[in-house]
Amino acid sequence: MFGKKINDINIGDEAQFSKTISESDVYGFAGIVGDFNPVHINKEYAKKTIFKQRIAHGIIGTGLISTVIGTYLPGEGTIYLSQSTKFKKPVYFEDTITAIVRVIEKNDEKNKIKLYTKCINQNDEIVIEGESLVMPPK
Amino acid sequence: MFGKKINDINIGDEAQFSKTISESDVYGFAGIVGDFNPVHINKEYAKKTIFKQRIAHGIIGTGLISTVIGTYLPGEGTIYLSQSTKFKKPVYFEDTITAIVRVIEKNDEKNKIKLYTKCINQNDEIVIEGESLVMPPK
Amino acid sequence: MFGKKINDINIGDEAQFSKTISESDVYGFAGIVGDFNPVHINKEYAKKTIFKQRIAHGIIGTGLISTVIGTYLPGEGTIYLSQSTKFKKPVYFEDTITAIVRVIEKNDEKNKIKLYTKCINQNDEIVIEGESLVMPPK
Amino acid sequence: MFGKKINDINIGDEAQFSKTISESDVYGFAGIVGDFNPVHINKEYAKKTIFKQRIAHGIIGTGLISTVIGTYLPGEGTIYLSQSTKFKKPVYFEDTITAIVRVIEKNDEKNKIKLYTKCINQNDEIVIEGESLVMPPK
Repeated sequence: MFGKKINDINIGDEAQFSKTISESDVYGFAGIVGDFNPVHINKEYAKKTIFKQRIAHGIIGTGLISTVIGTYLPGEGTIYLSQSTKFKKPVYFEDTITAIVRVIEKNDEKNKIKLYTKCINQNDEIVIEGESLVMPPK
Repeated sequence: MFGKKINDINIGDEAQFSKTISESDVYGFAGIVGDFNPVHINKEYAKKTIFKQRIAHGIIGTGLISTVIGTYLPGEGTIYLSQSTKFKKPVYFEDTITAIVRVIEKNDEKNKIKLYTKCINQNDEIVIEGESLVMPPK
Repeated sequence: MFGKKINDINIGDEAQFSKTISESDVYGFAGIVGDFNPVHINKEYAKKTIFKQRIAHGIIGTGLISTVIGTYLPGEGTIYLSQSTKFKKPVYFEDTITAIVRVIEKNDEKNKIKLYTKCINQNDEIVIEGESLVMPPK
Repeated sequence: MFGKKINDINIGDEAQFSKTISESDVYGFAGIVGDFNPVHINKEYAKKTIFKQRIAHGIIGTGLISTVIGTYLPGEGTIYLSQSTKFKKPVYFEDTITAIVRVIEKNDEKNKIKLYTKCINQNDEIVIEGESLVMPPK
């Protein structure tokens, strides 16, 4: 249990994780959750949408945020209570997405912290934005 | 673009999708988003946690909800605006999870609908609960 | 059991499903069935074949046909009796393949239907062609 | 191009390949071809079917046959012309399936061979049976 305890966490603390989202990531995710919406897996169909090409499932970005929470801040032993997510821009294949979380509130008594969470792409555009509520390990 | 338009959608409409969550789903998801928190992929570590066994990433459940939205209600052509999720109970390997979405608000003018979203397990326990805001296809 | 019963099925009924076949699809399929024929997974080897590049396993196309049968027409509860397949043209990586099935014979007494099945690529070329015999759900 | 040429192939020649079909094989295949028929991926649903448990996609067995053809007999450089398949019995998770092909006809002039193909399970029951037509490498 090597995650950070609430006493080791301060408002403003940040952590992040980056990944270039590949076609195989999107196809693998489609195969796990069953989301074969053609905008994700049909190149010809996607050309005719407003996106002009296939886009990643938005939830993959949410997944990157949970990676930061579960492995860096607070890390192992964290209990994930809730996540809100606004999908602000599409994620295209081969975009490099950085998930960033920042501590914005602490409740030592209840052992809870609130995090501002976002994903940005390689052009520093926010593609996903929201908040998490988590319990650090005791 | 075969998804339902806002005129074809009524408050109370429901759709769902079910899947037994396998070890391979969890391992595949870990590999895509990079969340190798040991509670998901280390059996020996997981035995010593309050869960006593490995659990699925909560975001997989959120993904099943997005499957229902993107492929059934409203379906193809939907723009996903936001998702909130409370993680209420763990999802264990081999649990059969049913994602259910239900229309709770409509705004015809702005072409937006709000959905109540939940995931239940094979014992009818709510494991995930939240709301989505989406734009049906025009 | 929500598939179509034989009374709800008419000669001429059609259903289809499309997917852009990715490298990850071919590699994943190779890993599942063990078909590591170099024409599928060795770019250097494939350059020297008549195809000049790696090609997908033909059976992936047959799989897309079974997807249409098992999830759309007739759908859930269908018993798959037989499938014949002619491989007419190669499927290249990034081809968008549409599997199409069409009802060509009905035997109400024996609860069997025969389907014409094909896969076409983004240029409307037939890559796979054959027939299926199935029993719709009762 | 190390496959067998037609002169090296005799009527009666056999080759085979075996694999225990895992849950991850079935889930991976579902994810590649998009076949999320609940009989394959929903344990609770499958309990209520005549199979009483989840079953593998029949086409996975056809894939094992193509593995034998493409990697053993005739092997590399083979052109796969056609495959017929009868699905005779279900394949359950953890069944060990052996795909067997046997040369039954040769046409030296046209460089074609016909193969009898079957898959048997660990109880020697035929689960899949059919024929292939292929062109060995020149």
